[in-house]
Amino acid sequence: MKALVKTGKAPGLELKDVAVPGIGPNDVLIKVKATSICGSDIHIFKSTPGYMRGVPIPTIIGHETCGEVIEVGEYVTSLKKGDIVSPESLIFCGECYYCKMGLAHHCQNRKILGVSIDGTLAEYARVPAICCWKHPKDISADLGAIYEPIGVAVHGVLADEVNGKSVAVFGCGPIGLFAIGAAKAFGAAQVFALEVAPPRIALARQLFPDITVINPREQDAAKTIMDATDGLGVDVSLEISGSAEALRQALKVLKSEGRLSMVGVPAGPIELDTHPDIIRKGVRVFGVIGHVVWKTLWQVRTLLETGKFDPARVITHRFPLAEFEEAFKLAVSGEAGKIVLYP
Amino acid sequence: MKALVKTGKAPGLELKDVAVPGIGPNDVLIKVKATSICGSDIHIFKSTPGYMRGVPIPTIIGHETCGEVIEVGEYVTSLKKGDIVSPESLIFCGECYYCKMGLAHHCQNRKILGVSIDGTLAEYARVPAICCWKHPKDISADLGAIYEPIGVAVHGVLADEVNGKSVAVFGCGPIGLFAIGAAKAFGAAQVFALEVAPPRIALARQLFPDITVINPREQDAAKTIMDATDGLGVDVSLEISGSAEALRQALKVLKSEGRLSMVGVPAGPIELDTHPDIIRKGVRVFGVIGHVVWKTLWQVRTLLETGKFDPARVITHRFPLAEFEEAFKLAVSGEAGKIVLYP
Amino acid sequence: MKALVKTGKAPGLELKDVAVPGIGPNDVLIKVKATSICGSDIHIFKSTPGYMRGVPIPTIIGHETCGEVIEVGEYVTSLKKGDIVSPESLIFCGECYYCKMGLAHHCQNRKILGVSIDGTLAEYARVPAICCWKHPKDISADLGAIYEPIGVAVHGVLADEVNGKSVAVFGCGPIGLFAIGAAKAFGAAQVFALEVAPPRIALARQLFPDITVINPREQDAAKTIMDATDGLGVDVSLEISGSAEALRQALKVLKSEGRLSMVGVPAGPIELDTHPDIIRKGVRVFGVIGHVVWKTLWQVRTLLETGKFDPARVITHRFPLAEFEEAFKLAVSGEAGKIVLYP
Amino acid sequence: MKALVKTGKAPGLELKDVAVPGIGPNDVLIKVKATSICGSDIHIFKSTPGYMRGVPIPTIIGHETCGEVIEVGEYVTSLKKGDIVSPESLIFCGECYYCKMGLAHHCQNRKILGVSIDGTLAEYARVPAICCWKHPKDISADLGAIYEPIGVAVHGVLADEVNGKSVAVFGCGPIGLFAIGAAKAFGAAQVFALEVAPPRIALARQLFPDITVINPREQDAAKTIMDATDGLGVDVSLEISGSAEALRQALKVLKSEGRLSMVGVPAGPIELDTHPDIIRKGVRVFGVIGHVVWKTLWQVRTLLETGKFDPARVITHRFPLAEFEEAFKLAVSGEAGKIVLYP
Repeated sequence: MKALVKTGKAPGLELKDVAVPGIGPNDVLIKVKATSICGSDIHIFKSTPGYMRGVPIPTIIGHETCGEVIEVGEYVTSLKKGDIVSPESLIFCGECYYCKMGLAHHCQNRKILGVSIDGTLAEYARVPAICCWKHPKDISADLGAIYEPIGVAVHGVLADEVNGKSVAVFGCGPIGLFAIGAAKAFGAAQVFALEVAPPRIALARQLFPDITVINPREQDAAKTIMDATDGLGVDVSLEISGSAEALRQALKVLKSEGRLSMVGVPAGPIELDTHPDIIRKGVRVFGVIGHVVWKTLWQVRTLLETGKFDPARVITHRFPLAEFEEAFKLAVSGEAGKIVLYP
Repeated sequence: MKALVKTGKAPGLELKDVAVPGIGPNDVLIKVKATSICGSDIHIFKSTPGYMRGVPIPTIIGHETCGEVIEVGEYVTSLKKGDIVSPESLIFCGECYYCKMGLAHHCQNRKILGVSIDGTLAEYARVPAICCWKHPKDISADLGAIYEPIGVAVHGVLADEVNGKSVAVFGCGPIGLFAIGAAKAFGAAQVFALEVAPPRIALARQLFPDITVINPREQDAAKTIMDATDGLGVDVSLEISGSAEALRQALKVLKSEGRLSMVGVPAGPIELDTHPDIIRKGVRVFGVIGHVVWKTLWQVRTLLETGKFDPARVITHRFPLAEFEEAFKLAVSGEAGKIVLYP
Repeated sequence: MKALVKTGKAPGLELKDVAVPGIGPNDVLIKVKATSICGSDIHIFKSTPGYMRGVPIPTIIGHETCGEVIEVGEYVTSLKKGDIVSPESLIFCGECYYCKMGLAHHCQNRKILGVSIDGTLAEYARVPAICCWKHPKDISADLGAIYEPIGVAVHGVLADEVNGKSVAVFGCGPIGLFAIGAAKAFGAAQVFALEVAPPRIALARQLFPDITVINPREQDAAKTIMDATDGLGVDVSLEISGSAEALRQALKVLKSEGRLSMVGVPAGPIELDTHPDIIRKGVRVFGVIGHVVWKTLWQVRTLLETGKFDPARVITHRFPLAEFEEAFKLAVSGEAGKIVLYP
Repeated sequence: MKALVKTGKAPGLELKDVAVPGIGPNDVLIKVKATSICGSDIHIFKSTPGYMRGVPIPTIIGHETCGEVIEVGEYVTSLKKGDIVSPESLIFCGECYYCKMGLAHHCQNRKILGVSIDGTLAEYARVPAICCWKHPKDISADLGAIYEPIGVAVHGVLADEVNGKSVAVFGCGPIGLFAIGAAKAFGAAQVFALEVAPPRIALARQLFPDITVINPREQDAAKTIMDATDGLGVDVSLEISGSAEALRQALKVLKSEGRLSMVGVPAGPIELDTHPDIIRKGVRVFGVIGHVVWKTLWQVRTLLETGKFDPARVITHRFPLAEFEEAFKLAVSGEAGKIVLYP
């Protein structure tokens, strides 16, 4: 089969012919219908130093996927041939302390699909059956592919309540846009979005004409937010960009006793002025990773059913897998919305 | 001044000339601009047995009010002449255990405006300054008058999170309609409303064309709700009618681990099948009374600022105070929305 | 093998020779070391009407068990021969909505061990591997047998926080005693216990000399509790007896905004005065059933590790399985602590 | 009267004769019985740069106080002569957004007693009546003086539940020792304490012989904690030292989804590795300042009533106010417990 493989430590990826993976008794084999590009895929493409440690060579990358089950391991009872699924990207064991405590996203034997084990930017992929979310048959391949990243956004948004809250979203990449859509649909009273890349600012404004989109390079973001919130700041900050500066601003514009969800992965350690920004304001900072299995994906399903937000509109580009070079170049530019590849 | 007074234990009220109340050093005197009719006003009008115990004779009734401060007690620093305010109806002392714990609605010295002390269906009313919510100058008298009952609805809705939840509201009187509007604006994913009075059903459908309004006398409400929620039931039930039957149904249609807010005041003890309906489903039942001072009224302010719901549309009738007989007759019928009286 | 079987609708049980159960690929066979008697076992023994509906004839009863795994189904990877386990009594499927949401105790395909399917008052028992809690090898059979009911108590106690709270426990049967021990170990500041059976009162006083044990038939329980809590009532009521009167009292002595956990199963519908007891006080009522899988049993493990409470002291009687008649007669009397049977 | 005054920007304090403060209509005048030394007093004594900005010259310092009300402003109804009180150190207005939301410790007009306004290391002090906590008459002056810092510790401990949790406390100064005592009394299952100063280590071991006290300069603290927690880490970290290194370690030893309360004030910005330590572990970080008015001080009262912990044992030294030089020298050394001064 064709697969997009990280074949060495240098930047770049190769589209190669590899064997279709065999499956174990608890696995399913899925025929990939669509896979979208995640930030971690971009890091592996670029060979970002911190990221490559966890990537064996060779590894098939990719994990935001929609596929059809075409083979079922002998012990599997929860899925059958023809089911349409999206895999969790954090592959959990189901038996460790965290899995038993309902916290499978912190599995002690956690593997990351397309990072520490072979992923889904390929024609076929092997996934443990317990790590699959089953869709209705008629879901579009595109929507199925972006279920996983929508889930990351929703997990960040609903890490605590947003009903009637003012919310500031830092970063308008795909996850940020999903987060804005989710915050609005889940009852945020006021939404601010911060972004520096003009095409993403334009996309945010087009998708959400009724929110305040701020370019902090051109406008005093803190002042804008404070002026619009009685000088109090927002109830909730969602840091999604991974930028140190954004994180510090996310704390600055937060109301006392407010909540910050940290979703974006920073490039390294960050200096924080914890006394004025966290302690004196009594704020609550929540780290957010992956999904709460399966609560988060059920919330994604609910979000879609509300009809208040169509996340497929965040997809701006589509390519056949063979044109991955162009797709990744675009992704690296930081100016696109979500990009989907079809094997 | 003119005031609507309960002058005896028999049904009915009298519009009388009484002295304008004098104020103490911690009070303000307000000139009433509008007062709406609450369920407890109706009970006092009807001399419902359980209610009359707490009503001294004579008492000026009424407490859902918007007024202008025209006199200020000598120790008062928080208000000044010309301020537009709504009083809390649960008059709290500010010094008891509950007041000191941030739970003033459970004040140990609690008095009820227009029930245990003179109220606001009059030209003027005395209120402790600490029990007044201050509005912006340009608020309409109508909206100011219904702030208090909107608050009761919002307290019930936000007793726990509603973001992304399915919600069933039992009763489409004014509080029920406010609750529906609040639940929707605060991000409920799905809303069901149950009501038996045809005019209220019509009003609910007109105000909220996108929710499911059910007449449980004509339709199998439980089946309708179960069918629309994957057979699971709703995440949240809001019991607002005070009907025993509604309360039992509110528990029946609730999902396991769901939340019921009890807002409506029943006529007496109620028989509940606690094993199947509460214990075995692990549900959470929250009693709801009054407002969390002042968190709830701030949430009302936020609700109005969203522009997603105009609660003034729940007001269906307006009368001068002198026509109180007609207003109360209408209120007793259980077929109107909110009714506002002007002194 | 020998097994205690409900062989007809009439009261009583029979000790019979039956076949050792065969196991499926996801099951284990356990050799029972000890099984304690639960309230539902007593109901089946007595053929209490409401309970018999869910019990097929014949059924092996019993589910509070410690056993050794002696055979392992072919798909099972989480357990091996020689493991010491206690089964969950609520047998869950692992694949339904609730199981996927981390709420397996509400499994839509839930079976009850020893009630709706064959149980553990026998020499051997079949249990799905995913429903087994694995103990350290050196756990005593007695402690293993009472893990399940300790868990029910702990679930009730920790349904919300007890740290620094005043707690009233209604009923000093085994679950009540476990709850008292857990509440104290988990930081309750003040504990009251209510019980009417003199031997249980004596046991409670002996196990917990520093709490206030009240016989509500001889003493004004509400007055005692109010006097000891500044007239406010307790922060937390735990209703464990299933008595309607106890439930009403549990609400009466609860502070405004307090929490009631309902654990005890009542005989039928109960009349509650919801306005004064729930609504006006803004209390929170939590239904409690079974365990949060596996969070609750981990909390039990933690409780035991603190060394602050030895739940084995709640066991007052031990019998060989053959003497079940005497054991059940004692259990029915309502005067014993926990009773353990050995096959 | 005698008062300890910061008279200039240079290090040091002066004991001066100053006028007894006059009071306003909402104030009380208290005759100080005892005042203990707080970390902020030490910073003002040393003229720590960051701290001096908020201190006008001259200012009477001190705020951890027990005193007797000897004069009452004309509008004050909540206190009378002879009442024994402790003032809140965060002086709040009672009328701003945060005060109205039950978050007076974030008052927008907040003043800090003994920092931004004259404090209590003096014979007399003026305090707004609404900022006083009233003690029972028979409280010891020492215990009254340390109520405020016990409250800071309790606020940190109970920022979320500790019942049955494993807890690591970073820093065994007075607040750290109070926190250990509170965590134990409120049901922590396991407590670790980290400290580098040998006299404080000795004090911690003496006060709490059953916890694990670790000197991270002599012992691998992370390994010790991990080994004792099944390799998982603690449920709760309480950072009380203000040390950057301690903060980073507090995150490292925290279990996934664990909770860190940040109580200690750091000297400046701190570099944190937020990806592995906060995001990937999904931890929750809570800033903690002052008290939740008055919930926290009620919790302090409850803590004392349990009799499980005698915080007066944390007081290691007592001096007359005139010997303040010796007291502050000792305080600066970082080797004492709590130090109390008597005017």
